[in-house]
Amino acid sequence: MNNFTLHTPTKILFGEGQIAGIAAEIPQNARILIVYGGGSIKRNGVLDQVHAALAGRSIAEFSGVEPNPTYETLMKAVEVVHREHINFLLAVGGGSVADGTKFIAAAANYTASDDPWHILQTGGQDITQALPIGVVLTLPATGSESNSGAVITRKASGDKQAFHSTLVRPQFAVLDPVVTYTLPERQIANGVVDAFVHTLEQYLTYPVDAKVQDRFAEGLLLTLVEEGPRALEEPDNYAVRANVMWSATLALNGLIGAGVPQDWSTHMLGHELTAMHGLDHAQTLAVVLPAMLRDRKAQKREKLLQYAERVWNLRDGSEEGRIDGAIEATRGFFERMGVPTRMSDYQLDGSSIPALVEKLEEHGMTALGEHKDITLADSQRVYEAAR
Amino acid sequence: MNNFTLHTPTKILFGEGQIAGIAAEIPQNARILIVYGGGSIKRNGVLDQVHAALAGRSIAEFSGVEPNPTYETLMKAVEVVHREHINFLLAVGGGSVADGTKFIAAAANYTASDDPWHILQTGGQDITQALPIGVVLTLPATGSESNSGAVITRKASGDKQAFHSTLVRPQFAVLDPVVTYTLPERQIANGVVDAFVHTLEQYLTYPVDAKVQDRFAEGLLLTLVEEGPRALEEPDNYAVRANVMWSATLALNGLIGAGVPQDWSTHMLGHELTAMHGLDHAQTLAVVLPAMLRDRKAQKREKLLQYAERVWNLRDGSEEGRIDGAIEATRGFFERMGVPTRMSDYQLDGSSIPALVEKLEEHGMTALGEHKDITLADSQRVYEAAR
Repeated sequence: MNNFTLHTPTKILFGEGQIAGIAAEIPQNARILIVYGGGSIKRNGVLDQVHAALAGRSIAEFSGVEPNPTYETLMKAVEVVHREHINFLLAVGGGSVADGTKFIAAAANYTASDDPWHILQTGGQDITQALPIGVVLTLPATGSESNSGAVITRKASGDKQAFHSTLVRPQFAVLDPVVTYTLPERQIANGVVDAFVHTLEQYLTYPVDAKVQDRFAEGLLLTLVEEGPRALEEPDNYAVRANVMWSATLALNGLIGAGVPQDWSTHMLGHELTAMHGLDHAQTLAVVLPAMLRDRKAQKREKLLQYAERVWNLRDGSEEGRIDGAIEATRGFFERMGVPTRMSDYQLDGSSIPALVEKLEEHGMTALGEHKDITLADSQRVYEAAR
Repeated sequence: MNNFTLHTPTKILFGEGQIAGIAAEIPQNARILIVYGGGSIKRNGVLDQVHAALAGRSIAEFSGVEPNPTYETLMKAVEVVHREHINFLLAVGGGSVADGTKFIAAAANYTASDDPWHILQTGGQDITQALPIGVVLTLPATGSESNSGAVITRKASGDKQAFHSTLVRPQFAVLDPVVTYTLPERQIANGVVDAFVHTLEQYLTYPVDAKVQDRFAEGLLLTLVEEGPRALEEPDNYAVRANVMWSATLALNGLIGAGVPQDWSTHMLGHELTAMHGLDHAQTLAVVLPAMLRDRKAQKREKLLQYAERVWNLRDGSEEGRIDGAIEATRGFFERMGVPTRMSDYQLDGSSIPALVEKLEEHGMTALGEHKDITLADSQRVYEAAR
């Protein structure tokens, strides 16, 4: 096991009716900005629950944060923060809204540059203060509700980049599985795939004898395999939605990645597909991951065999056969969730691959993976194999 | 899954050499009291590492905290806190030292009663302030380093009772597996048994379809079964000690118990054995647990079957046979760790059982377990079966 520091201070309020609990978590005299997306929280009653919980408080609203939240939109929210003297941000939505709110929190009083896009260019390392954040989660997927990372897109340049700062980690997150009942199938499917790949990026590397982290990762994977398809078939099964929601948070709150190598190459290649072609984040992961695993079989051999045995119960036959079986089982799981796994399924013929690789280079993604040995040529080969 | 609130803000510094990291976690101008036990930290160099990390700081020391820390001793530490105007407590030791430090932290400025034993009588509910605490853990076992509970013994009356308050949860905990190399075998064995039973108390109840919590608990149990005996055989195997240490912390930091029923009856019956006869805490758990599980087979049937399959790989034969097999495998595991599982192994003939049951009654332990259906008569039967 590698050395690690693990800090998971976000307070989790989990279960039906827990939105009412935000009243006790936000300072009484706070000037609150509710940040949300396209308005589904108006239709499903979540925004009403939030207002009921915060009756009598000072509240402003900012809506219109997109999936893959953009710098351009978020800078308008920063203006509202300044104009209304906001000192608490309440994100109500999925990972995009949480990510966007983190950017607003950091950009509001950013001093290292006149242009807050600098936060993305420097990965967040020179953030010195941020507004406090709470999250009411409506879509289990990214884990953003209790971690310190965010991914922001700049429309003008087609860039999609990440930043991290413990200063933007939410103080609390409300996870009520009931609010996910009305989500479109595609969003639940994307969320399950996203959480699954988050787990794999921290698990399918090389062994460091970290038995607890391995068992926990496998526990999340097994749960998502069991509950993912049921979440589509039985949208108002509380227990199923609860298991999916809790899995997605734990997949990326720092716990399973503490003390182990991490990969994240699939995410990096995926980000470029979203930025250039507008694919959903999870769709890009479903496309890239199987190709990446096939390409990295040698480097990931021992963990692929463990994955095959413990998650897919593949114990017989040759090692090669079990590894291939596990990769194809992973692809089959994504397909069963309704998320296709080939570029061609999204009307991409591969002609943009050189441009995608150029973007990787532009973003400094020239040595990816747990061994930092995935070159641009390797990435190009993976994109080609994903056609 | 049941509703829950989960808050795990204790920052974990894990790995070899991490004691140096405490310098950055304790305020520069703090007046620090180092609290420890019998002096093993002087012999194994841990105290030297702590002093090196805190060179130039204001430091006082209080030693002599016992296994099963006593009110009588801890009140002397409270006097030191007052006399030296201490405002930060650094516990250096195992669960007893951490527990004792929590009591000192709460008792130092306790206002609800003139006698801080009142903290135990009220379970900690009227604690309104506590000194900040950090922990340098030397013995993986209780999980006290990152939770809000403590168990304190009053010698004068032979009472052993618990209290809980989020105000006494440590701000940080250092877990360096190397410092456990020199522990006596008995302490490592006790620690493994303690962590194992902590996990079972939160797992072996009844199903609430909490798949992640179940998988995580099983992951800890499997790790302890694999690594516990190796920790005895290979005392300086870093990976093994690391896996045991991390398992013990996660067994009782709130994570696996969030949203599921909890039992804790074995602990309650065990506490009385320690208070009356001086058995080690883990020894009492090893004695009580197998008898308790046999007695509660009907109430715990489904989870016992799951435990038999997933932890002990018992898949064939009758349900009754698998359940009995799992209970005997548990007993065998404790014995393999060198912790006997019968009262008679500790020269107890059972003649004190009526007195033990009286103590349970005196402490209000008249309706124990996840169903609150374990009466004093049931407890008496369990003690008898454990002879």
